[in-house]
Amino acid sequence: MSNRVGAADGAAPLERLSLNQITIDQWTLPEVVEGCVRAGITTIAPWREPVAKVGLDAAARLIAGAGLAVSSLCRGGFFPAAGDGERRRADDDNRRAVDEAAALGTDVLVLVCGPPLGRDLARARTEIAQGIERLAPYAAQHGVRLGIEPLHPMMIGERSAIVTLGEALDIALRFDADEVGVVVDAYHVWWDPALERELARAGGRVVGFHVSDWLVPTPDLLQGRGMMGDGIIDLRGIRGLVEAAGYDGPIEVEVINRDLWRLPGDELVALTRERFAAAV
Amino acid sequence: MSNRVGAADGAAPLERLSLNQITIDQWTLPEVVEGCVRAGITTIAPWREPVAKVGLDAAARLIAGAGLAVSSLCRGGFFPAAGDGERRRADDDNRRAVDEAAALGTDVLVLVCGPPLGRDLARARTEIAQGIERLAPYAAQHGVRLGIEPLHPMMIGERSAIVTLGEALDIALRFDADEVGVVVDAYHVWWDPALERELARAGGRVVGFHVSDWLVPTPDLLQGRGMMGDGIIDLRGIRGLVEAAGYDGPIEVEVINRDLWRLPGDELVALTRERFAAAV
Repeated sequence: MSNRVGAADGAAPLERLSLNQITIDQWTLPEVVEGCVRAGITTIAPWREPVAKVGLDAAARLIAGAGLAVSSLCRGGFFPAAGDGERRRADDDNRRAVDEAAALGTDVLVLVCGPPLGRDLARARTEIAQGIERLAPYAAQHGVRLGIEPLHPMMIGERSAIVTLGEALDIALRFDADEVGVVVDAYHVWWDPALERELARAGGRVVGFHVSDWLVPTPDLLQGRGMMGDGIIDLRGIRGLVEAAGYDGPIEVEVINRDLWRLPGDELVALTRERFAAAV
Repeated sequence: MSNRVGAADGAAPLERLSLNQITIDQWTLPEVVEGCVRAGITTIAPWREPVAKVGLDAAARLIAGAGLAVSSLCRGGFFPAAGDGERRRADDDNRRAVDEAAALGTDVLVLVCGPPLGRDLARARTEIAQGIERLAPYAAQHGVRLGIEPLHPMMIGERSAIVTLGEALDIALRFDADEVGVVVDAYHVWWDPALERELARAGGRVVGFHVSDWLVPTPDLLQGRGMMGDGIIDLRGIRGLVEAAGYDGPIEVEVINRDLWRLPGDELVALTRERFAAAV
């Protein structure tokens, strides 16, 4: 038994494993569904593009028909916009993402907030908060919580001006807890010296927990994440902190690694299960 | 005139430009010295390896003979150690780095603090603080200030467990201001939502200011920095905040970019001067 504050004792139960679709990007959505059923994985987290390829209604029937739960839909966001027209299009798209989440039977829409459009980071952060404010009432009406996911600071130029759990929480705390929360992806936040402190004030606000690992060296800024256990993130320690913040829901395995995408799908699913038990 | 808090008015004077040697890695130290004299650049920041190639005494004579000032020496640090023997070797090497800084005529030794050795980040951070504690008295005796440089969180696995200005300051503030300070490299800290707040408590503690730019996309985790003006960092805004913290010393141009290393050296020096005037 560990005496570290928040350290989790023992492995997370396999029932908590949710397979984020991008982990197994070599598979279509139907293949992911069939593969999870074969492997005894009961929860998945689809992305919008592969859902659109199948069609929303067909995807929803497929997932429900296989008896799978959906932990979240990835993703809404990308709020900073060049002008009103672009802003309206982004808002429309974000409302569609809410509709899709509801149709797929999940109550969590992950928000990747979008990069700054120029050099004005403060403005991008203001526009993100305003965008969430416009979206939140619509999401609440549809029973979908918005999960602000801070991304690693190396992804700021392409994906998100929100790069720390602290600023994600600062935005989330302006709303009701059942409307807006945060998604804690260990890969994006593990380096943060304020992580323990920020998770301590995240009580009731964590709506998702994602795991993968930080490889040394990291081969690529986007597609260089490691399978759990292959890197240097103290995943069990972070899980303990997340659980101490009151989160006991699904744990999404979201490994974005171009080398792993070359494996046969069933082999990668088996590795995911094994490492979930050993390292999470 | 900008009304942004801390924004600098107009370009930094060319006299403040210090050429960090790695910007022009295609040149040896003698070539850098000659090139700076040709270009009217009056300050340089050497790295230890190219100094060692020439020999410490010869390098010191060469630089002083050319009338150049030295803004800092790069680098000491790498404190987390596997065992006492490794720790002693690191301490010895860090004292040598202090000696070299003094011999080269600079009062600033940049500290790149070193990565965690395993998954225990908190321990690495404790060992870093302890290592600085062991080194600080020796440095003070030799008239050298230690400059803790937080590195970008994407470099945590190979280079530094100190990844925010806040934690660098937390360590520095345990010491006298003339013994330990912080080095603010815009590339490493620009993403931080706490940057303005942390610089506001850094008064008298900034011992160096480095500039380059964040490219979109960033082609490489280590050698993908941009020349000032080619990326999305608000360098002038950050310079204003650094100056408001009381720093008016040399501004080191530290661009680590493998494409720029293919240019003829004089061309790269000319570009550096031009962009320093336009974007810093």
